[in-house]
Amino acid sequence: MKLIRFGAFENEKPGVLTVDGKRLDVSAFGEDYNEKFFATNGLERLEAWLKSNDCPEVLESERLGSCVARPSKIICIGLNYAKHAAESGMDVPKEPVVFFKATTALCGPNDDVIIPRNSVKTDWEVELAVIIGKKASYITEESAMDYVAGYALHNDYSEREFQLERGGQWVKGKSCDTFAPLGPFMATKDEVADPHNLHLWLELNGTRLQDSNTNDLIFNIPQVVSYLSNFMTLLPGDVISTGTPAGVGLGLKPPTYLKAGDVVELGIEGLGQQKQTAVAWT
Amino acid sequence: MKLIRFGAFENEKPGVLTVDGKRLDVSAFGEDYNEKFFATNGLERLEAWLKSNDCPEVLESERLGSCVARPSKIICIGLNYAKHAAESGMDVPKEPVVFFKATTALCGPNDDVIIPRNSVKTDWEVELAVIIGKKASYITEESAMDYVAGYALHNDYSEREFQLERGGQWVKGKSCDTFAPLGPFMATKDEVADPHNLHLWLELNGTRLQDSNTNDLIFNIPQVVSYLSNFMTLLPGDVISTGTPAGVGLGLKPPTYLKAGDVVELGIEGLGQQKQTAVAWT
Repeated sequence: MKLIRFGAFENEKPGVLTVDGKRLDVSAFGEDYNEKFFATNGLERLEAWLKSNDCPEVLESERLGSCVARPSKIICIGLNYAKHAAESGMDVPKEPVVFFKATTALCGPNDDVIIPRNSVKTDWEVELAVIIGKKASYITEESAMDYVAGYALHNDYSEREFQLERGGQWVKGKSCDTFAPLGPFMATKDEVADPHNLHLWLELNGTRLQDSNTNDLIFNIPQVVSYLSNFMTLLPGDVISTGTPAGVGLGLKPPTYLKAGDVVELGIEGLGQQKQTAVAWT
Repeated sequence: MKLIRFGAFENEKPGVLTVDGKRLDVSAFGEDYNEKFFATNGLERLEAWLKSNDCPEVLESERLGSCVARPSKIICIGLNYAKHAAESGMDVPKEPVVFFKATTALCGPNDDVIIPRNSVKTDWEVELAVIIGKKASYITEESAMDYVAGYALHNDYSEREFQLERGGQWVKGKSCDTFAPLGPFMATKDEVADPHNLHLWLELNGTRLQDSNTNDLIFNIPQVVSYLSNFMTLLPGDVISTGTPAGVGLGLKPPTYLKAGDVVELGIEGLGQQKQTAVAWT
């Protein structure tokens, strides 16, 4: 199953994307894709409900929102592809580097990305995101995939000056509004044969800058989910972004950052595409 | 007004603490102290409602929970007292150091603190927390207090090995379950004459280790709230913890950390007290 959310920002309605590419409005199911939905077997219940209910199609003109509702946390893994660690001038980590994004950064896959006020180093990061399906605390790597609900495409936008030059912790450069486009859809786990063998890419104004495969992840999904669960409780609906491959603006020679009017397109095999236009903060 | 929440963990009910020290059950008001409550003038509405409704008293035996419901984020300021920066071996920051705690760490003021599995460096930090009253983005220092709903006592528990020796970002040592006892109550802004002149203290097994005043904050509340709003949108109900003074376990000679059975007591003038007993993870 592929979950979508559509409509105005913060008033999104739930939908599904069918195998033949139709977007169905499942508002009548009566639930958003939030913590409670995932915690109460929402995926199974929705699938069963769909078999006995006809749903209207979503208008082609409708905006897509984040494919899941605002979670309790967006957890990101840093430097999880070796070449990206090198381009960032950092060592390959011995254990996962963990940081948070404010959940207020969440937005739709094709929303404009707002270059924050006083930003001169807004950068992109195509990533595979994992959505947690049930509460996880101190779980093993062997059982970790049982706690995964599905996957989605994520652009982990990052303001490098805020992140690296303004004192302290990375969260400062990761949390601006529109810095977490998620979607177009969440694919349930069964839709993705091997999440560790997915092509992912990103283009800036038509030039391909990131081009890699999740088979290059240093710490794979079970390792990351199990690891995190040793430091915090993961809740249903939580989003874990697994890190970005080489080719971000920080690593280009010379470094290159977004300016208003730039167009960013990205995709992951089987998880769709996103397209953002950069706009100045007003 | 002083807001409390009482009852079983994750099933807390709202209450208020009256001027004569009674704990009243305001479940009949029908709202928890969450984002929606603060965003819709909940404080004013509750105050008006209390004038025309008699409420039952809360049983003395009832557990107190976090004084506000799980927020969208818990944002913490690091190294915001000069002596604490020194004891941590770090420079006084030029601008606020910002990090997040997972909101799953939130708990009641007198709940046991769980020493995480494999933890050898669980440490304490008494802090003044600020609760945001309305959505804030790019706000000035001059207007920042208009966005504050109130204040509460917070113990920003920290696992120093997870935080400082396990690679990367502090969030890893800040986010374990029970690492954010908040309360006993949230005092609305009008209850605190001067939040920048409050005595705060912490005792371990009866020995006073932290003993300071919020007049020693490097970055004060308007500066912190305004600053943060330049990097992320603050939502109603969000919690900002303003940093801890000297006297944490990391700074003692030799460094001292919690072991099962230790008792931690702390307080802030006008914001009540907390008492936690350390227990081993099982």
